[in-house]
Amino acid sequence: MRVATLKDHSLDGRLVIVEPDGKTCRPAKARTLQQALDEGGLEPAGDLVAFYDHLCHSPLPRAFQFLDGSAYVNHVELVRKARGAQMPQSFWSDPLMYQGGSDSFLGPHDPIVGDPEWGMDFEGEVAVITGPVPMGANREEAAAAIRLVMLCNDISLRNLIPAELGKGFGFVQSKPACAFSPLAVTPEALPGWRDGRLHGQLNVDLNDKPFGRADAGIDMTFDFPTLIAHAARTRPLAAGTIVGSGTVSNKGEDGPGRPVSEGGAGYSCIAEQRMVESILHGAAKTPFLQPGDHVKIWMEDTNGASLFGAIKQTVQTI
Amino acid sequence: MRVATLKDHSLDGRLVIVEPDGKTCRPAKARTLQQALDEGGLEPAGDLVAFYDHLCHSPLPRAFQFLDGSAYVNHVELVRKARGAQMPQSFWSDPLMYQGGSDSFLGPHDPIVGDPEWGMDFEGEVAVITGPVPMGANREEAAAAIRLVMLCNDISLRNLIPAELGKGFGFVQSKPACAFSPLAVTPEALPGWRDGRLHGQLNVDLNDKPFGRADAGIDMTFDFPTLIAHAARTRPLAAGTIVGSGTVSNKGEDGPGRPVSEGGAGYSCIAEQRMVESILHGAAKTPFLQPGDHVKIWMEDTNGASLFGAIKQTVQTI
Repeated sequence: MRVATLKDHSLDGRLVIVEPDGKTCRPAKARTLQQALDEGGLEPAGDLVAFYDHLCHSPLPRAFQFLDGSAYVNHVELVRKARGAQMPQSFWSDPLMYQGGSDSFLGPHDPIVGDPEWGMDFEGEVAVITGPVPMGANREEAAAAIRLVMLCNDISLRNLIPAELGKGFGFVQSKPACAFSPLAVTPEALPGWRDGRLHGQLNVDLNDKPFGRADAGIDMTFDFPTLIAHAARTRPLAAGTIVGSGTVSNKGEDGPGRPVSEGGAGYSCIAEQRMVESILHGAAKTPFLQPGDHVKIWMEDTNGASLFGAIKQTVQTI
Repeated sequence: MRVATLKDHSLDGRLVIVEPDGKTCRPAKARTLQQALDEGGLEPAGDLVAFYDHLCHSPLPRAFQFLDGSAYVNHVELVRKARGAQMPQSFWSDPLMYQGGSDSFLGPHDPIVGDPEWGMDFEGEVAVITGPVPMGANREEAAAAIRLVMLCNDISLRNLIPAELGKGFGFVQSKPACAFSPLAVTPEALPGWRDGRLHGQLNVDLNDKPFGRADAGIDMTFDFPTLIAHAARTRPLAAGTIVGSGTVSNKGEDGPGRPVSEGGAGYSCIAEQRMVESILHGAAKTPFLQPGDHVKIWMEDTNGASLFGAIKQTVQTI
């Protein structure tokens, strides 16, 4: 099953069940996705209408919790190097995770509004929405709590991160509102869902040119059940908790991966490409996002059909 | 006006308006506090019934955002010393803040459930609930967005904090669900509300003995409008955002404050008392919370009437 939330001038939007063709949908019995997760009602209850990505909000326009992991440890190592920081060896065994803002997500086609001086960057990720997870849940209980899978653009303000993380309390100003794919999909409807991971190519285009073609199922050191169990160690997680994978990243055969233009899998964020440029050429040359830049993030099935719809965002200055 | 949320087996509880006597209440027109903040309806619409603290949930049983500042920089300096970490001078001018979990708060009389090995501690704080705050709001806009004031017990797992903060992404496991006071009060109904701060003595008792009697209006380096504007620098804040003050803490005349038993204002968390014990006696002697320990946090008006009701929590092992 694939669901989406249409913008309707309410804060939580209107939940719809999308037909297999991806072109039509029906209103769900539950008015909102949070209601469906809390009380049930994830079933169609109305007439078919046309479905368009650009009329969608994020599946949960606001959520009670967003926890973002950094499961692709290759990405963490490269970004730390770019900040001149060392990555401890324990990061390969103890998941890194931060509590993200969740009070007002962007819609998948909403502009990214910010100051170019902040060093705006996109991050292509996979994310899951959970049902209730008891405190101290093990991997199996965590796996059973996964209700829906979607894509995420976790927007990051690179120039604000070093000073903010230097204070030691994580991200507030340097991680503004992020956006999710139009469609959220149940795991059983995803052929690439296995081993607690979503396998398949995560496509990222910057200004209509291929930027990232990494496989989300490769190099994901911590799977989603492990990330969820990590979060639930000392507290229960409520239904509607979103857990993100962190930036999807594939290693190269002999070090950092190459850009798509050089035959590699490319990158799911600009920071990683800049780091690789520094390693290979002595200096970063790709700038962070500028006004008018546009980013597209999507995945396809083996027939080329879009699984989650597309995140398509254009940068605007404040 | 004073409002509260009664437990009623729904996830968001039932909003009530509490009468000035604090002994009776009426159902509000809006069913929940989040609805009242989103759409209005913060007015009585039903018959008087008896009101009891112990039937209350936190005013927002779950919220879309909880941002906790560390506005009492004296506390930050002492706790960092206790961890063997230095505090940068910039902490006196740039607010420290973390994104906290908000998906399922404890009720004000719910048990604190955890493992004594985690080093469980309470933190007595003041917190505000905001209306919508635009991105880039200044202090005046931030001040105008403050809708309600309440008290908070921000539970902290001291033995998990050093390793988790060492990873650099803030708190996830080391800050489990916190609790808020039964009553949330509009600023104009609080005689001690001025200069963007709540003035008055924050009472903290541990096992029925006075532990903290600090004044919340003293030594608060950053007021609430400053904390809110800090959070809104790069993103809007949705209605129902909770912003906490961090642990209330007063300096002593010549260094750290003394315990209540020695004539001082005491402390609003155990970690601070332990730090002062280390400074004065060479070693901490007060243990962190043990099963059966109970903590009470409340404030009174000049007539001795309780302003927010009382947070009263007992520790249980998992």
